[in-house]
Formats: sequence, structure tokens, C-alpha cells
Amino acid sequence: MSTAFSIEKISGSARLGRLTTPHGKIETPVFMPVGTVASVKGVTQETLEQLGAQIILGNTYHLYLRPGVETVRRMGGLHRFMSWPRAILTDSGGFQVFSLNELRKVTEDGVTFRSHLDGSAHVFTPESAIDVQIGLGADIIMAFDECTEYPADRERVRASMEMTARWAARCKKYFEDHKDQSLVGSAPTTQSDNPGTDMPPVSERSRQVSAANCQPASDKSQLLFGIVQGGMDRELRKESAERTIEIGFPGYAIGGLSVGEPRALTREIVESTLEHLPKDKPRYLMGVGTPEEIVEYASLGVDMMDCVLPTRAARHGLLFTSEGRISIKQARYAQDAEPLDSNCACSVCRRYSRAYLRHLYASNELLAQVLNSVHNLSFYLDTMQRVRHSISLGKDSRFLSGVGSRPKA
Amino acid sequence: MSTAFSIEKISGSARLGRLTTPHGKIETPVFMPVGTVASVKGVTQETLEQLGAQIILGNTYHLYLRPGVETVRRMGGLHRFMSWPRAILTDSGGFQVFSLNELRKVTEDGVTFRSHLDGSAHVFTPESAIDVQIGLGADIIMAFDECTEYPADRERVRASMEMTARWAARCKKYFEDHKDQSLVGSAPTTQSDNPGTDMPPVSERSRQVSAANCQPASDKSQLLFGIVQGGMDRELRKESAERTIEIGFPGYAIGGLSVGEPRALTREIVESTLEHLPKDKPRYLMGVGTPEEIVEYASLGVDMMDCVLPTRAARHGLLFTSEGRISIKQARYAQDAEPLDSNCACSVCRRYSRAYLRHLYASNELLAQVLNSVHNLSFYLDTMQRVRHSISLGKDSRFLSGVGSRPKA
Repeated sequence: MSTAFSIEKISGSARLGRLTTPHGKIETPVFMPVGTVASVKGVTQETLEQLGAQIILGNTYHLYLRPGVETVRRMGGLHRFMSWPRAILTDSGGFQVFSLNELRKVTEDGVTFRSHLDGSAHVFTPESAIDVQIGLGADIIMAFDECTEYPADRERVRASMEMTARWAARCKKYFEDHKDQSLVGSAPTTQSDNPGTDMPPVSERSRQVSAANCQPASDKSQLLFGIVQGGMDRELRKESAERTIEIGFPGYAIGGLSVGEPRALTREIVESTLEHLPKDKPRYLMGVGTPEEIVEYASLGVDMMDCVLPTRAARHGLLFTSEGRISIKQARYAQDAEPLDSNCACSVCRRYSRAYLRHLYASNELLAQVLNSVHNLSFYLDTMQRVRHSISLGKDSRFLSGVGSRPKA
Repeated sequence: MSTAFSIEKISGSARLGRLTTPHGKIETPVFMPVGTVASVKGVTQETLEQLGAQIILGNTYHLYLRPGVETVRRMGGLHRFMSWPRAILTDSGGFQVFSLNELRKVTEDGVTFRSHLDGSAHVFTPESAIDVQIGLGADIIMAFDECTEYPADRERVRASMEMTARWAARCKKYFEDHKDQSLVGSAPTTQSDNPGTDMPPVSERSRQVSAANCQPASDKSQLLFGIVQGGMDRELRKESAERTIEIGFPGYAIGGLSVGEPRALTREIVESTLEHLPKDKPRYLMGVGTPEEIVEYASLGVDMMDCVLPTRAARHGLLFTSEGRISIKQARYAQDAEPLDSNCACSVCRRYSRAYLRHLYASNELLAQVLNSVHNLSFYLDTMQRVRHSISLGKDSRFLSGVGSRPKA
């Protein structure tokens, strides 16, 4: 499976890579927009394609509860269900089970939790979490882990990390025994190696909407990544990395960060954990971060990141620009004819003024959330594109990105 | 001003026409999507262009309150403010003042009302309503009228209709005296006769976003339309039409319908009122209606219609299709892989399944409102396109439209 990832160029600690998935190749470092329940909030799949999103993330916990894995499976998997022809990653549900459920009960077997929607009781085990993710059919799926709370004492963190390691082994075993049931693995190949974004003309449509275009590009299997835990303890992180690597995965994630700890500590743990991860495998830092942070972590050698921040902030009127953050609700923008970011070529900045965006937000118009989300996602994706360009030129990715070199308040 | 409208073809009572505005020619019969506060809810201007919207409607009452006419004026008028290069019509505020204000006070001079936003007191007179509309700078503006309540006794309807006629004369006088202040009339001509929809490349952008593209196509003035009232009384409608025509306008609207009366009565009043309107001027039926109704009224000789129904229904999960209405929230669609409307070529029906749309709605996802709105608008605009095609072929517009001939429950 090591051929799934290749490193094209190295600049400092940063790496320009290429990750091959059943739904196309991904250039890394990559930012993955979050599409919690099979939708990146407020943004159409067409727009995501236009923005250059290479891979999006779905949340197993949410999709399991609604629409349910059986519905997604019957609809041909997540790609067909949401008509997204490029790559998808699903998390394992571990993080949501811990963050959305105060009444969860954790045993060696797994986690009993209550739905945040209707209070109904459910169980995730390492095996069931993988089973659900095989049913959803994402290109990259994640081991079921325990996201250790912060703060926690060392014994608690060690016990949690060790259980995550045991769960990782169970996940891998279940995956190896069942991966042939994956829609990604079993579906016929109908696309070229690099699926395009054009939809077939109406006259060629099959009964299943856009089915053909969401077929995997090859008969490659899903990729199961392991997750390193260990709280804020560098030694336990090292041990978690070693144990996870020993089990063996085609990619490794760093989980359990951005859970309330100071940002300097996050960075310290990321940097020290990266030292213990294989250089020839993709490294995924989960749930991070601000534009400055994604540039910084890419420069440290992180290959994949995801965060709800661009879309969530957008819905609250907080917009990221090359000149810093803008709170578009402010009256100072009411008659500002400038584009949101004069250095941005996104469809929002090409067409609309700050005054109009401010008016839409102040008027609580649906379009405010749509346009703000498109811009923020564009800003994140363009930032990562510039990081990749910097690495390809052998330059400091923080400089050319235009973000990391000058952090804004 | 009679040259602004030409009739290309007549089929029965239906007319295929062409209305020339400062922002391009409009083929009639036309359906005008409603963009209450300078946004068709949930739909970008790019998408509206792709859907073939020729003209959209803005509500003077709402725009007057927020962002305010001075802001719009300083931003270069409504076209520039919202970056919409095609035609815009603003209503006079009359309908909203009556429908949103229980505490309004009507005198011969005008209407005192309270903002539905903050309770602040405001006054609209015929003169001020025109002044606001000159400031907003729409291509077609409307006389300030009193929308008579339903039911009302004959004397009340007569008095109201007569005041609307007197107000119409005041509107016309004020407009004639001040129309040279209109941004539409005074702005320099920078576009060809038929403004395109492509935005200029980023490198050519001026400081004001998209300003050039929203310039009027010629130095033509705004068009002020009169409004016929008279409640549900055919005689009073006739008298209102005659008095409004005597004042003289380049187009005539039928107002005061769809205010709670039975639909058969609406149709009867429309049909009888149309008999008294000039055949060589555009006729605008305000606030109507369902897909079946817009086809029916076009066949009676109505040239322009607007309605919030396609977007409002969309936000409630009610979708219009060639096979009838669909309530997408229903569980029966949970695993339905078919497109919403297999006869529809809109971007939603080309790409997404009913199952996905149902999931988005059930999950209260922002994208549900966006996609549903795009489809319903597409259905309305395509319906009217088919009506125009039918008329051009000399056929019964109700037949070829695929809607009016088979009304659905």
C-alpha cells in the first residue's frame, strides 16, 4: 500500500506529495473542507469543484445517525449519494462520540452513546465503526479511537492511548477481513484514471443520477489510516506512534489535539509527534486550524488537514482575507465598494462588494452564508495551493503563502 | 415611450413581446424572481444568470428600510450594489406597507407606517415612493398605490381606487420632474446594447466591484408603470384602468389581487381588467402565482408576473415538477435515486437525487434551501420559456408549456 503516497519534493520539513485514492490523486499538503452530513454547509458540489477541493471530509457519527449507513449503501455509497466524484475521507466517529455525548459509556469493547438528535442509544466498537465506514465507502477511512479529554492525568492518558492502540489493531483486522465488501473496492471501473468534473449530458443520464461519474477511478481499496493519541505527553505520543506504526497503516493521523489546550502546546505536540511518524506515509493532523496554522503545520511536514472553521466562521460573518480577518457585520463596511479581498480571485471577490456582503449579513439573508462560505473555503484552498507552489519552488511555504509570514490578530 | 414595447407575435390572447429597458431587452411573457432585499433568497446572481432570469424584482419597502436608499444610491444604484447587470423592477412599497403594517395610517397625502424591523415611524407619499425608486435606480418602477383590503364594500373600494388614481397622477408628475436624477438615466454608457453576463477578468477590475458590467445599456430613462386597482368589482376595475390610462404610462399593472379572494375570482377580475388595458403596452399582473397560474395568465395576455412562491415553497421543501408537486421531506423519497424531475435540465436535476435532496431537507442543511430554490426558479423560468416558444409557434401556450394543460393537486 506504500505506493499510494509519493513525495515529489521536500523543502525544509515540508513535503509536496501525491496521494492516490480510488477517486483520483490528491496533491498534498491538502486542506479538506468538512461536509459533516454529506454537504459542505451552504456550498454546492459544483462550487466545491470550481474551488479546487480535492477531497472532502464526512463525519461517520453524523452520517450513521442520518441518513444512516444502510441508506447510503443502497444509494451506491457516499460518492454517488452526494454526487461527489472526487475523494472523500470519513472520520471514525470517535471524536463526535466524545465531544457530543456527555452520557457516553466507554468499555474495552467500545462506546455506548446517545444520539444528539433523539436521545436513542447506540454502540460504536472498533469493528462497527469500520463496518459503517466500509458501508459509506469513502476513499480514506479512520481507525476508531478514544479522543482523550484535556486536561487529564498521565495514567488516564496512558490508559486511553493504550486502548486506542488495541482498538487500532481490531480496526485493522476487521478492515482486512471485510474490505472486499467496500463499494469502492467492488464497483466496476468506468472512469479514466483521473476523473473529470464534468457531468454527463442529460441525454446520457442513467436512472441513477450521476452514478457513472462517481465511480472509483480504479479497483483500489479504501485506505484505512491509524490515529496517534497520547494527550499532551510527548513520551506517550511517541509510544502511541510506535504502537500504531507497528500495526501498520498506509497513513497516520494525529488526533486528540485542538481540544482546549493552548495553541503553543498543540504545536509542540504536533512537532514532536511528527518526528516519530514514517516519512514515506501521509500525515494527517485532525481538526486544524486557522489559515496561519494550516500554513505552519504544512511547513512542519503535515500533509493533510481538515477544519470546520472556514464554513463555521463564514456563517458568523467572520471572513479570512490576505489582509487579515474581517467581521463583515461591522457598520464600517456598509458603504465599502471594495471587494472583500482584493488579492482573491474567488467568485465572491470578483463580483460582490463588502457593502453588499455586509448588507446580506445584516439582513440575515441566506445568500450571506452561501457567499461567505464560498470565500472562506476559497481562501483556505488557495492558501494551501500557494503552500504547495512554495514547496515546489523549494521555498519556505510560510513566506509565499501570504498567510503564515504575517499572522493577523 | 411606446417604442419600449413591441409585440412580435400573437396567439389567441397571448402575446410574445419585447420590452426594452436600460439593462437589456426582455422577452415577454416573463416571470420575475423576487429579490426582496437585493437578493433572490439563497441564489447567487451567477446562478440567476445561468437560469436565464431576464429581470428580477426588488421591494422598495424593504430596501428603503435596509440598507436604505442613500446607501444604494452612493453605491451606484441597485444594479451595481447587488452586481446584477440585467433588468430590475422595484415595486412601490404600497403592497408591503399594507400587508406588513397593522398600524398604518392612510391620508390623502400618503401613508404613515412603522418599520417591521424596529417599529420606527416612516411616511411614504406618492412623491417619496418615486423619489426612493429613482434613488434605487431600477429599470422599471411602480406608482404608489393603495392595495385595497379584501373583502371591502363597494364604497370603500371606490374611494380607495380613486385615491390610487390621484396618487398615480402625483407619481407621474413627480417622476417627470425628477427622472433626470435617476442613475439609470444619467450614468455613462459603457456597455453594448445587450449586456453580457461575463464578468471582466480580475486584472481589469475597477475599484468598484463589477461596476462597469452593471451600467445601463443605453441612456434610456427608467420606466414608470401605473397600477390598476378596484378590488373585485369589474366596473371599478374598468374605471381604474381608464383613469390610469388617461394619466398615461408605458406599462400597466394589475394590483390588489391574490389578497385572499378565491382563485376563480382572481381569474375573472384579471380577464375582465385586461380587456380595458392597451394592447400595445406591457401588462403586469402583480404577485402571481402557481406554475399553472402563470401559464394561464400568460394565455390571457399578461406579459409580466412575479411571485415569491418558487423560492418560499422551496425553503419549505415544496418542489414543482413536470409531474406535479413534491414534498421532498416525505420518507418515501429517502432512497429514491431518481432526479427530482426527469424532464428538468437544471443543475439540481442533472446532478442530485431525490434521496439526497430529502436527506438535506431532513437534516436542515443550508444546501437544501439553496438547491430547492434553484430548481423551483428553474422550473418557473423554463415554464415561461416554453410558453414563449408556444406562442412563437402560434400554439396554445397552455399545451406546450407542459404545466397548464394538466394541473396537479
